[in-house]
Amino acid sequence: MSTLKIGICGWGNVATGLYKIAKNNIESIKKQGNLDIEIVVIGARRDNPNCKPENVIIERDIFNVVNHDIDVMVELIGGVDVAKDLILKALKKKKHVVTANKAVIYNHGDEIFACAKENGVKVLFESSVCAGTPIIKLLTEELSANKISKISGMLNGTSNFILSNMEDGAEFQSTLELAQKEGYAEPDPSFDIEGMDAAHKIGILSSLALGTSLPPDDFYVQGITNIKKIDFKYADEMGYTIKHLAVAEQNSKEVVLRAHPVLIAKDSYLANLKSVRNGIEVETDLLGTLHLAGSGAGQESTASGIISDLVHLANSSEEHLKAASNEKVILSEFLNLTFQYYFYIEAEDIPGVMASITSVFADKSVGLETIVQKENLDENFVPIVIITDPFKEQDHSNLIENLEKLDSIKSVRTIRIEQD
Amino acid sequence: MSTLKIGICGWGNVATGLYKIAKNNIESIKKQGNLDIEIVVIGARRDNPNCKPENVIIERDIFNVVNHDIDVMVELIGGVDVAKDLILKALKKKKHVVTANKAVIYNHGDEIFACAKENGVKVLFESSVCAGTPIIKLLTEELSANKISKISGMLNGTSNFILSNMEDGAEFQSTLELAQKEGYAEPDPSFDIEGMDAAHKIGILSSLALGTSLPPDDFYVQGITNIKKIDFKYADEMGYTIKHLAVAEQNSKEVVLRAHPVLIAKDSYLANLKSVRNGIEVETDLLGTLHLAGSGAGQESTASGIISDLVHLANSSEEHLKAASNEKVILSEFLNLTFQYYFYIEAEDIPGVMASITSVFADKSVGLETIVQKENLDENFVPIVIITDPFKEQDHSNLIENLEKLDSIKSVRTIRIEQD
Repeated sequence: MSTLKIGICGWGNVATGLYKIAKNNIESIKKQGNLDIEIVVIGARRDNPNCKPENVIIERDIFNVVNHDIDVMVELIGGVDVAKDLILKALKKKKHVVTANKAVIYNHGDEIFACAKENGVKVLFESSVCAGTPIIKLLTEELSANKISKISGMLNGTSNFILSNMEDGAEFQSTLELAQKEGYAEPDPSFDIEGMDAAHKIGILSSLALGTSLPPDDFYVQGITNIKKIDFKYADEMGYTIKHLAVAEQNSKEVVLRAHPVLIAKDSYLANLKSVRNGIEVETDLLGTLHLAGSGAGQESTASGIISDLVHLANSSEEHLKAASNEKVILSEFLNLTFQYYFYIEAEDIPGVMASITSVFADKSVGLETIVQKENLDENFVPIVIITDPFKEQDHSNLIENLEKLDSIKSVRTIRIEQD
Repeated sequence: MSTLKIGICGWGNVATGLYKIAKNNIESIKKQGNLDIEIVVIGARRDNPNCKPENVIIERDIFNVVNHDIDVMVELIGGVDVAKDLILKALKKKKHVVTANKAVIYNHGDEIFACAKENGVKVLFESSVCAGTPIIKLLTEELSANKISKISGMLNGTSNFILSNMEDGAEFQSTLELAQKEGYAEPDPSFDIEGMDAAHKIGILSSLALGTSLPPDDFYVQGITNIKKIDFKYADEMGYTIKHLAVAEQNSKEVVLRAHPVLIAKDSYLANLKSVRNGIEVETDLLGTLHLAGSGAGQESTASGIISDLVHLANSSEEHLKAASNEKVILSEFLNLTFQYYFYIEAEDIPGVMASITSVFADKSVGLETIVQKENLDENFVPIVIITDPFKEQDHSNLIENLEKLDSIKSVRTIRIEQD
């Protein structure tokens, strides 16, 4: 059995969770993971009333942690700049690094991977994407005979919780407040509901599976704040529900990276992942379509992912992460993509309004698959729901502008439709 | 990068698929898996018109394969007894073994694992359960910090294909014929539809995750041949669908192993896995509930799993499979388990029949949650659907017998209800 001496930087919720689980589950870890974990040093600016470590050196200067006799530094301080400096210092000291910090990997991954390679050590970050749900190991280890062509994921628990509740009839604002009350959303939820958290995660997965750079240089990101309860009703009538999807896809020689809300067929796998669950769908040449889903957050789940990284360090003979490829992968421009669209238009209930709306689409040569005029909202305005034929993303904002120019139009809202 | 010299025993569909993919995808395997594969020798009793290997020694006596300069023997001959002898011979010659053969692992796993340990080599068998879908690696590698309490799986593609079609209104017999026509079912489908295939798979997973022996000494197995189209209609009305489920569950100090049809809530994850897909749900202490689903069969998928085993052999430093534990795990007797039941009873449409049926349940002190008398089948017989309260499995056959003794009863059919 191997023993790893580790130093932990950061002493918050995740770090204390790791400490407790590494103590409490050590017999399982030894038996199943062939690993004994010795926590040598903890870098903590202050004590944590929730956990008092025993027989461990406490360093108040986290940059001193790597000066101790350790094999691995576990970075759990969060943030970007200090975390990056800390990780690079550890790698240069020939220490392996395990981190749960998606922001630092997303923003400085390539630099960090290169530094690790140069120094003959490893950086593992299973918990940075969907906590301990082993999505990264699945992509990097178990599918190594496969060419991966697409990864679609519901990667943000807060967004999925809100959309699942809206599907069941709740309003956005009240659901967000519920999510905050239940601890599924941060006091400032913008990172989650504006799509950045999901974007970070798919960016990391894309780097591993499709070789894109970190940070990526082109990426379309949109959150869920624009979705209304009524959209679920109309989507449902047409066989769809609404999800926030993050996608990395190989299109001939280019890779598309995008994270935004979509209409998605109700009977699809991802449509049926409810509440705070995270999940991915991976398309491969040999295994066909694979699904993996689990809890995407939480102290215990994150600790589980960190320990799986430690087990991996202890039991694998050589670096074989796919990251830091030498070939430069080209990212597609989002404006060149083609989607079908859901348009929700509120228009004055007057003669000729439908003709003026449809002529806006006709002017751009955009065909319409379905047009449904719904029951009036009040005596003045009527909602019109349109499903378009596929058209280029670059015409999208133009179409909205042209519709909004019409005197008879009160508002326009669109959601892309995800193809099966 | 490591190079593995391999010998392949067997030269059928899976073996030729492996040969082709190891050639065609070698660049991905090198890059992603850090592995070069050199196929040194193939043991084949006869040539295969579908594939003519180049620069490879052909051995007509498969038992001679291990006498060549190889690191790994890949056993793809199928069957039980000869395969076991072949595997044991390779292990004693200090060759690692990779196999896709679930029957030999199920029936002789413990003996094989012990022999491998004694000789300091490894046996890997990812493809024996759901082909290349990396269920075994998930359980043995990625969850090593977790205590696994339950695995539920839909592990047989043929059964799932038939039940999914019956859910959509088809009859058992015509769907079985369709499955045979499409290649999803064997000409003799009994191994699949009688539940043994799923039982083998859950037996193997249970051995890895819960430490039960191979072969297991107590196991309840029932197939899907008794399910009728009408059962789906009544199940649906009560919020269920019908699936064939294989379950390994830790109950205090004992483990339950069972594979049989169940009524399962329509909105559950496993209820939504359709057609030939395979999938598992794993309950863990740290990660909560995990789902993994993929294609469970096919030449390419199986080859992918074999290659992931080879990558694992090349890149891991030491044996840390969970199999072959020294502690003896006790299997629960199925008769001691408790289930709610769906009863479908065809009874004569005469006064007093309901009273005599309900008194059979009352005599055994079995409560009834729901009783529904459905529209008459013909002028003489009426179907009665009953959902019971939970009762002990040991009263089950007794209850059926007592019902069948009633003159007014034409037939009785039962399906267990799976709790969430």
